Amino acid sequence: MTGPARPAGGQRPTIKDVAALAGVSKGAVSMAFNGRPGVSDATRARVLAAAGALGWEPNLSARVLSGSRVDTVGLVIARPARMLGLEPFYMEFISGIESVLAGRDSALLLRLVRDPDEEIEVQRAWWRSRQVSGSILVDFRRDDPRVAELAGLGLPAVAVGHPSLTGGLPAAWTDDAAAVAEAVRYLAALGHRRIARVGGAAELGHTAIRTAAFEAAAHELRLEQWSSTDTDFSGSQGARATRTLLASPRRPTAILYDNDLMAVAGLSVAAEMGLSVPRDISLLAWDDSQLCQLTRPKLSAMSHDVFGFGAEVARRLLAVLDGAQPQTGPVATPVLAPRDSTAPPRR
Amino acid sequence: MTGPARPAGGQRPTIKDVAALAGVSKGAVSMAFNGRPGVSDATRARVLAAAGALGWEPNLSARVLSGSRVDTVGLVIARPARMLGLEPFYMEFISGIESVLAGRDSALLLRLVRDPDEEIEVQRAWWRSRQVSGSILVDFRRDDPRVAELAGLGLPAVAVGHPSLTGGLPAAWTDDAAAVAEAVRYLAALGHRRIARVGGAAELGHTAIRTAAFEAAAHELRLEQWSSTDTDFSGSQGARATRTLLASPRRPTAILYDNDLMAVAGLSVAAEMGLSVPRDISLLAWDDSQLCQLTRPKLSAMSHDVFGFGAEVARRLLAVLDGAQPQTGPVATPVLAPRDSTAPPRR
Repeated sequence: MTGPARPAGGQRPTIKDVAALAGVSKGAVSMAFNGRPGVSDATRARVLAAAGALGWEPNLSARVLSGSRVDTVGLVIARPARMLGLEPFYMEFISGIESVLAGRDSALLLRLVRDPDEEIEVQRAWWRSRQVSGSILVDFRRDDPRVAELAGLGLPAVAVGHPSLTGGLPAAWTDDAAAVAEAVRYLAALGHRRIARVGGAAELGHTAIRTAAFEAAAHELRLEQWSSTDTDFSGSQGARATRTLLASPRRPTAILYDNDLMAVAGLSVAAEMGLSVPRDISLLAWDDSQLCQLTRPKLSAMSHDVFGFGAEVARRLLAVLDGAQPQTGPVATPVLAPRDSTAPPRR
Repeated sequence: MTGPARPAGGQRPTIKDVAALAGVSKGAVSMAFNGRPGVSDATRARVLAAAGALGWEPNLSARVLSGSRVDTVGLVIARPARMLGLEPFYMEFISGIESVLAGRDSALLLRLVRDPDEEIEVQRAWWRSRQVSGSILVDFRRDDPRVAELAGLGLPAVAVGHPSLTGGLPAAWTDDAAAVAEAVRYLAALGHRRIARVGGAAELGHTAIRTAAFEAAAHELRLEQWSSTDTDFSGSQGARATRTLLASPRRPTAILYDNDLMAVAGLSVAAEMGLSVPRDISLLAWDDSQLCQLTRPKLSAMSHDVFGFGAEVARRLLAVLDGAQPQTGPVATPVLAPRDSTAPPRR
């Protein structure tokens, strides 16, 4: 086979060599490779030909030839941009990922999309062009199309979700069913017989898991009354759901929320309706960002180290990139952090 | 000059062609280009030679040859990972950026570093390898080394910061001095003569701008007493600063905060110390994420569309990538949103 034409001296080709061979400036080489306006098609073709002849390419050669590697990790989120900024979960999760990547000179490539099908296109393109070394996959739905499509791609990935949702992909998850059961048992032990849950987005697999666990616990504990409402995780939908519950003729005496932002909103609704927390109504949050300790009363929560979860997922992915066998298994289960928003119901 | 050897038929070279010419599998080509273990140095050299001869490279050729372009935008943040997840500002800002990038099939490359010098290294590496088409630069300090270093690089960039901090870089900023003056004038108009400010991180240029504006307004309005405290923007430091202020023998009657998280924490401290807001103490927040409307009382704030700010910065950068002249200018100034946490002081 024919090796690429190397510049004199056997040195690694540089952009200068490509520019000289193509008879253009270094800036023109950059523009041609970067797809920018400012060079003609003919010039672009000449630059590409020169680069090909010299074996030069702008993105990967330096690090491949130096033997070093800088990993970029992909994360695609199919949620509205507005929502992403409002809910503490993702920023804490991303911060945890970044805390691990920063130690490896690595960065996170973050993209918002409309749905899992669009994510599949993005992940394919990223992997094909090696813009990412691997990806973290989140927000699995039931029968998620990513399971089959991405498993076949060869893309190193860690799926954040229960194995019942993530199929054969290496996965990390919290045991949401166990945590929901603990939450309901705690409220029942305080004496609550009418418990409502303000849940998350119905299309997400982990919401369905929590809903089923809530139903099962309510049955098992022979509650007098229970209900689950779906929301989009926003404070405003959390407030609306709470208002509906508290305005009902036979209102619940305790409410379990699927995140903490909605519980903070619920606290505000209770005050607006003249109800005292926890005397008139107990509220129990989920995720437990620092929000829960900034309210009055402080919110009891199913506490979950979201930052640590992100860090652990990143560590598992980097281990795969280093050649380790993919690891599948749960991370720590959310645990009850009782504070001042839960108490026995008034008799 | 010699063009690259094309496969028969004049088609664009594929990874299959490279694999065939190098006598290896497609997977080995990927591994060689991705710097992964699993291929020998000899194989890696053979693959690179074959790719060079064919004019194939994994990252850019497809989009360059097709004439389309997918931009990746870089964002480097020099803050501790933990902090990033706790403060609403960055997630809203990033969400705003993503809302614009998503419409262009573009992604954000996000990296955390320790300081501006490390950012310079990262931006250089990203730009040299064309991992990014341009970058958004944030958190400028006085005499920020990025101004000189990155201006000379040719990297398309939009700097988020006042021109007194960002030098010749195209910049977008909020007029923090005007907003601070408005905040102090509002509190003074309510009758407050002892006003404290719980500020942000001392090393950031915009904190210094706000501190100077606060001093100037206090002088101009002949306040009886004023002070500024620096923090790291966290709820815990905001709480501590508030506790110190409220425990002082001659406590302020109003406190202005540099973000909303610290104001929420301040509200909690006032309650803990048995002080009523706004009867005993007025609190005025900054940024105005939805947190401010979830508390009781609702927090008055210098309201600022952080999501819209991120979106505008992204639009300006994309315009530059499309060949437009860089635009420098302020975005909307934060405006007063009076709610229930500010009132005239008790006589």
